[in-house]
Amino acid sequence: MTDQDYLDLAVAQARRGTGQTWTNPLVGAVLVKDGQILAKGYHHRFGQDHAEVNALKQLADERQARGTTLYVTLEPCSHYGKTPPCARKLVTVGVTRVVIGQRDPNPLVSGKGIAILRAAGIAVTVLETTKALNPAYNFFYHHHRPLVTLKMAVSVDGKLNATTGQRTELTGPEANHDSQRLRATQQAILIGERTLTVDQPALTVRETTVAVPPRRVVVVNAADKLDRDNRLFQTPEPVWLLSRQPSHQPWPASVTVVAGRPWTPDQIVQYLAEQGLQSLLVEGGSHLHAQFVAAGVVDRVVTYVAPLLLGGQALPAVLGPASQRLTLSLTGVQPLGADVRLTFRRRG
Amino acid sequence: MTDQDYLDLAVAQARRGTGQTWTNPLVGAVLVKDGQILAKGYHHRFGQDHAEVNALKQLADERQARGTTLYVTLEPCSHYGKTPPCARKLVTVGVTRVVIGQRDPNPLVSGKGIAILRAAGIAVTVLETTKALNPAYNFFYHHHRPLVTLKMAVSVDGKLNATTGQRTELTGPEANHDSQRLRATQQAILIGERTLTVDQPALTVRETTVAVPPRRVVVVNAADKLDRDNRLFQTPEPVWLLSRQPSHQPWPASVTVVAGRPWTPDQIVQYLAEQGLQSLLVEGGSHLHAQFVAAGVVDRVVTYVAPLLLGGQALPAVLGPASQRLTLSLTGVQPLGADVRLTFRRRG
Repeated sequence: MTDQDYLDLAVAQARRGTGQTWTNPLVGAVLVKDGQILAKGYHHRFGQDHAEVNALKQLADERQARGTTLYVTLEPCSHYGKTPPCARKLVTVGVTRVVIGQRDPNPLVSGKGIAILRAAGIAVTVLETTKALNPAYNFFYHHHRPLVTLKMAVSVDGKLNATTGQRTELTGPEANHDSQRLRATQQAILIGERTLTVDQPALTVRETTVAVPPRRVVVVNAADKLDRDNRLFQTPEPVWLLSRQPSHQPWPASVTVVAGRPWTPDQIVQYLAEQGLQSLLVEGGSHLHAQFVAAGVVDRVVTYVAPLLLGGQALPAVLGPASQRLTLSLTGVQPLGADVRLTFRRRG
Repeated sequence: MTDQDYLDLAVAQARRGTGQTWTNPLVGAVLVKDGQILAKGYHHRFGQDHAEVNALKQLADERQARGTTLYVTLEPCSHYGKTPPCARKLVTVGVTRVVIGQRDPNPLVSGKGIAILRAAGIAVTVLETTKALNPAYNFFYHHHRPLVTLKMAVSVDGKLNATTGQRTELTGPEANHDSQRLRATQQAILIGERTLTVDQPALTVRETTVAVPPRRVVVVNAADKLDRDNRLFQTPEPVWLLSRQPSHQPWPASVTVVAGRPWTPDQIVQYLAEQGLQSLLVEGGSHLHAQFVAAGVVDRVVTYVAPLLLGGQALPAVLGPASQRLTLSLTGVQPLGADVRLTFRRRG
């Protein structure tokens, strides 16, 4: 077993927290002595114990931690947040070596956890091999805005629906289930006003459990003119209405209206970043897609291609007044029932 | 080795003729005695020896064929065409058993080759497992028209080009090479007038050799108004201009003008069927695609998806006045360099 092998086990631990740790990253830890794995742990949920502490709690006696090597996917924390700093805890229990998957990009921690360990004489190795575990978390701290994924279900000829102004069910159950799993990894879901009124999506995460549901964000012209019977307002998950016009009406507790800005894509992602949101899924429609592409704030594209040609004049998946060229790289191809999922990331 | 195993070897032989046998089908044969393979053969080229005869010619002495089993992917022929009938030849040389991959759908042969063999006391087994070898040939004899494949290179959002009236190079060298291979399997390639004038495609098969190049077919309003300097007329491969208006001008020998019909998709495929063409590749543009889908004469769809979002108002891959819904089944997914090829067949 190499250091990376133990770290891979820690990664597998970390993934067990998927969908539950918002807005904390996924973190896993493995405690090893003389080639024996003594304990494993992961961060279960925001506000609860960190991975390192969870691993230590697996020991019958904390004194067993003396002289061990801890493998942890992310730099141990150095600050008093919801829990005491893990770096200090590791010093206290007598861990003698720490292998870290990735330096924490969060400036509250970055390098400080490592410094605490080294100052206490602990041998620290940083491998920088676990960044893929928390793409949005890493993106957020490097770019100071959420990682934006544009999602669309399209026909083979790139149409969103057969007839303008009417929802068309394109994809089958496997693709729809995958789409729910994708939602579960996101902290916010955004749609435009037309998609709200035509599709009436619930934008909730179904078929899977998440600790904190994604914020359901809608860009609208005038919040006060929306139909309160819209399906979006019938479920308790939070809704943020980004309204160009001011609002003068009372709204239910689940609805937050942020009014009076033009709400360009840049303004939207900036606002979400201020709220600490690290990931955003843009789910339509065509014009919103085009605006995000034109603004240069699309980082990933997920398309579910349904085995249909629709033709006609109906809505292409990205529609704007001018060309919005965005060059991508194909990162995944996955048949899902009768459909196929293509995943891309922006190039450069 | 089972009968199917030997037949699979015959299929592999048959495929060696790919692109060369037009308008004959691919056929392969294997001659076996006491579990020993004595000879293999395939149909090399239209007008030359059939697979069975080629296999027999591999023998040092034709008398070695006595008491053998012949595995052949298609029913041996019964008629005098470019060569004498193979069924009679097999009787003459003393083959005692024939395992046939598929009964010939061509009414000139169908069942008659088998009858000749059986009448001579030869044991005949028909497995009906090799139809996939000649999809267009089989389709043609069952439906009395060419197998129509709609091919398009599109951006992720289903656009053919960034700006109307200007060719956009979407796909990379691997996809372009695959596209050439696809052309090599086709007996005709069709484009609309706008694609002719905007893209100026040569519609030739490059990077691979074919015995007979696909007919290059263009539907135009008035042949006489075309620019004779168009790239299409600069190469010697045959061009068929399906012109709505009559033509009164002389044309070079490589160009055939068929004028005075409205040239709907039904009329186009009917005309090609009359000329004995078994396969047609429709290569654009959007309106021609839409017309073919609307007319219900699209049997396969091949899309090369380029990793780009283009947005804008530019040409969707299928564009017509009304919806042209066509339900497909995904039959293949193949990454090609930076692009991905998706292959579909019509459902039902």
